[in-house]
Amino acid sequence: MKRNFLIASVVLLTSMALSASAPADFELPDPHPASLEAWSQVTAPSIGWGSTDHRYKLNEVPATSKTLNLYGWRGERVNAQAVVMAPKGGTISFSVSDLRCGKATIAASAINRYFVRYIMSDSFRNIHGKEDHGNHMTASFDSVLVADRLSPQATLKAAPQTLRPLWIEINIPADATPGKYRGTLTATVDGTEMTLPLSLTVGKRQLPKPADWKFHLDLWQNPYAVARFFDVPLWSKEHFDLMRPLMEELANAGQKVITASIIQHPWNSQTEDPFESMIGKHKSIDGKWSYDYRVFDRWIEFMMSCGITKQIDCYTILPWHLTFEYFDEARNCTIQKRLEPGSKEYEEYLLPMLTDFAAHLKSKGWFDITCIAMDERPKNLLEPAYEIIYKSDNHWLIEGAINYYGPEVSERMYDISFLYNQPLLEGEQLSNHLAKGNKITFYTCCVPEFPNTFTFSAPSESTFLGWHAAAAGYSGYLRWAYNSWVKNAWQDSRFRTWAAGDCAITYPGGSSIRFKRLVEGIQDYEKIAILRGELKGKKLERLESQLEKFTPTVIAEGFGFDQLVDESRTLLRSLE
Amino acid sequence: MKRNFLIASVVLLTSMALSASAPADFELPDPHPASLEAWSQVTAPSIGWGSTDHRYKLNEVPATSKTLNLYGWRGERVNAQAVVMAPKGGTISFSVSDLRCGKATIAASAINRYFVRYIMSDSFRNIHGKEDHGNHMTASFDSVLVADRLSPQATLKAAPQTLRPLWIEINIPADATPGKYRGTLTATVDGTEMTLPLSLTVGKRQLPKPADWKFHLDLWQNPYAVARFFDVPLWSKEHFDLMRPLMEELANAGQKVITASIIQHPWNSQTEDPFESMIGKHKSIDGKWSYDYRVFDRWIEFMMSCGITKQIDCYTILPWHLTFEYFDEARNCTIQKRLEPGSKEYEEYLLPMLTDFAAHLKSKGWFDITCIAMDERPKNLLEPAYEIIYKSDNHWLIEGAINYYGPEVSERMYDISFLYNQPLLEGEQLSNHLAKGNKITFYTCCVPEFPNTFTFSAPSESTFLGWHAAAAGYSGYLRWAYNSWVKNAWQDSRFRTWAAGDCAITYPGGSSIRFKRLVEGIQDYEKIAILRGELKGKKLERLESQLEKFTPTVIAEGFGFDQLVDESRTLLRSLE
Repeated sequence: MKRNFLIASVVLLTSMALSASAPADFELPDPHPASLEAWSQVTAPSIGWGSTDHRYKLNEVPATSKTLNLYGWRGERVNAQAVVMAPKGGTISFSVSDLRCGKATIAASAINRYFVRYIMSDSFRNIHGKEDHGNHMTASFDSVLVADRLSPQATLKAAPQTLRPLWIEINIPADATPGKYRGTLTATVDGTEMTLPLSLTVGKRQLPKPADWKFHLDLWQNPYAVARFFDVPLWSKEHFDLMRPLMEELANAGQKVITASIIQHPWNSQTEDPFESMIGKHKSIDGKWSYDYRVFDRWIEFMMSCGITKQIDCYTILPWHLTFEYFDEARNCTIQKRLEPGSKEYEEYLLPMLTDFAAHLKSKGWFDITCIAMDERPKNLLEPAYEIIYKSDNHWLIEGAINYYGPEVSERMYDISFLYNQPLLEGEQLSNHLAKGNKITFYTCCVPEFPNTFTFSAPSESTFLGWHAAAAGYSGYLRWAYNSWVKNAWQDSRFRTWAAGDCAITYPGGSSIRFKRLVEGIQDYEKIAILRGELKGKKLERLESQLEKFTPTVIAEGFGFDQLVDESRTLLRSLE
Repeated sequence: MKRNFLIASVVLLTSMALSASAPADFELPDPHPASLEAWSQVTAPSIGWGSTDHRYKLNEVPATSKTLNLYGWRGERVNAQAVVMAPKGGTISFSVSDLRCGKATIAASAINRYFVRYIMSDSFRNIHGKEDHGNHMTASFDSVLVADRLSPQATLKAAPQTLRPLWIEINIPADATPGKYRGTLTATVDGTEMTLPLSLTVGKRQLPKPADWKFHLDLWQNPYAVARFFDVPLWSKEHFDLMRPLMEELANAGQKVITASIIQHPWNSQTEDPFESMIGKHKSIDGKWSYDYRVFDRWIEFMMSCGITKQIDCYTILPWHLTFEYFDEARNCTIQKRLEPGSKEYEEYLLPMLTDFAAHLKSKGWFDITCIAMDERPKNLLEPAYEIIYKSDNHWLIEGAINYYGPEVSERMYDISFLYNQPLLEGEQLSNHLAKGNKITFYTCCVPEFPNTFTFSAPSESTFLGWHAAAAGYSGYLRWAYNSWVKNAWQDSRFRTWAAGDCAITYPGGSSIRFKRLVEGIQDYEKIAILRGELKGKKLERLESQLEKFTPTVIAEGFGFDQLVDESRTLLRSLE
């Protein structure tokens, strides 16, 4: 029987790969299904609370609880996960009641409900966290089906002998009355109704609005992926309508930075949907340059309308390929020219463009928040780039993910990012840079293995990131991909390069466990910042000593994230 | 000694290939130099008349003549070739005196003077004339240095033991007094002066102006090659200034057709400089199409100012690659889309473009002379193309080089071309098509081996082409490349595909023996047309019977072109 199942899986996987041009809301079969033996004990549908730390396997029979006690500040978002067992399959739906505390109510409408969906992933075999650029289909990665996507759909049809995790996110109103609220989660499987009680204690403290969070969140957005995935015209009303919930959720996570591509393919074409240039560069027949900012303006204005207003990062004048494009009206086509930084041709192309761009940004009132962004470029390229930037305008801000440090870096870069576990600025350098009003973030990307936000990463690793930023004294966190969705993003998070999930921390038309847990860590960062400002003596010492555990050296082997995050959040609550 | 020379040649050839980014006025060494033994008899510079049928080898010691008797109609152009022997080398210059006949004079300024320059060529080994797309560097082609380029330079430095051919072209004024003119060619080698007498008999008949020639000459022009070769901006004043003498010489050969590329790379990128689109196609952010005709208009207006005014051929809506480009303002880059003729997408792209283009052409007064041109496409592609063309405007003219024939071809195509020795229309079909005011041309390209206009072809083969058109009753001749110059066009006519010289029948800043001899054949075509209208009885029979020799079956082996053309021109004169 199991053998037959596996054969069927292979057939199905193959046919999916061949047919999946348009995304559809199916799931790929699990290449490593759990044993079905335990299901012989499960005869009727049932429900229980699970843990948000756990990615439930589709066929497991997990231990669950009938009670759940949540805690949060006013204005905080709190997550919970329940599990429905469907021994005979069936159509599942669920709802959550209003939460009540005496006369006070948190309305059901403040609670987001999601079905947890299954996504194909792989794994990171190199236990030492080194990058492996091998093809994910080779032996160096193995495919696994993981619970990660959060889909806001109304119902879900479950196959027999499967469980279905349900995810809820309670948005505690900023003006909620403190106290213990009670409510009920009700699920039905083919009409069979089951209920689970729920309690939420709302504390007296209030978390600021996400727009006021100090955490400098910089997840790069890819509008091109949205247009392609939903097959809508770029920058059309449909496109913006589809992007709005996606980008509003990002704004609500405290995102500060709008990602803008001012040149074609700043990072080659490393994503399924390469970033095109949001600025048109036109060389007229008589050799004159003109620039078209219509796309750039629409994008920035849209993102600001979603609530992301603090910073605009413009990638880049140092693309990896060093190839620069423009539309040549004499040839009626786009020309790609390789220009060496420091050369006359590099300056001739960039200086008029940056000068014109600075003037345009000033006319829009955006110049003071706009950075020219440069990603992981070596010193010999950065130097001539700085030169052109300042030649065009002495007041440009610069952002950079750096992989070396010299004094000129912090002199010139407003916003610096470096890799987790390779801190290039520490101690006095770090505090001096921040004292000038600058930003410092750390980033994870295809490395390290732990902590990270791959689809196979432990959910608590996402939460760890906010704690790590707080522990190291960073402004926040940078990730190169909020939504550079892979081809069949609803089914499969694997990609031709890098471990699964690296390209996107969220999904089309929904969210992810990883993203919800990341926001928890950011909320914790805000709480820590508030408490650091208030606590004194032993209490402060206890907090700082707990934070010291959030360093690369303490967490190196990839285990214990759940416990560490859990004990730290418990401590945090006790220190309030 | 000879061995050393060859080794030096190889070294030089290699270094040329490596360094020749900018063209320079040198010549490559002859890989097969003639024996220098005969030079022991040549001790002083000398001069003699040669034959325009002959490509003199740089080191040969040829038989020459001290006398030359030319003949031409008023308004005709007449060529002659002299040879200077330079046993010790030296700087050569030459001039031609006014030609006098009693009180009448043909001014020296009516005589174009050129040094004949040496060009690397290859050969067409496949004696049966079949196409060989092999790399010219392989054994299937062998390199030879040939005399072909005509350079109007004032002086030339000759190496010791070389000859230098001199070429003159006498433009007999249309109003010249008939009679026998005499003059002198004077050459100096390092100051040593030599003279050659010259006589020209001007007949009573007058050739019409080239603009009025009936011959339908269609040599495709490549403006992109000119900009690249001389490294000037496309469509700049410098570019047009460099193109003017080139295109005026073409107009003076009776050219009727302006070649326009309305799509990117209509023939893939088969030439050193691919044809870009002269029409910009822009898709705005809101999905609307607009078209930019500035380049197209500049090109057409320029070509008309050069004297080519009868027809505009627009390549194409059936490019070989079936890939169609446009500038996408949403992505700020050129998009290439493969569109299948007959598909909805093909129509969606082309119909608005052709409709707009027709309106633009009408506003310029050009619609009635503009053809949509389609080159060697099969019936299953032509049918959907016709459909879109006529859907956009029922009165479009169509031009096509065809390789099949059906009744719908002559119904739809105004201007039809087919390959030499594969006449698809003959007899009644041919005369019916022409009777409606249509055009029929034949073409040569990479085939046949004979007659053709490769750099190694016998010069008389070029003249043969006009005679063949007259014999077969065609409107004229089509060649796919007037000036699609190869990389180092001043030195080397070889190309990665096709036999040498196929890409261009002329040279930058000058002309060629092939081109001058082609014009002779066109002039003969005009003379034949005039005489056919006048001659009767035996004389007409003699002419027609001579013309019957200009068929593929009579001239199949590649020999006898010189004699055939010569005897035919003598006959023509006798029939006047």
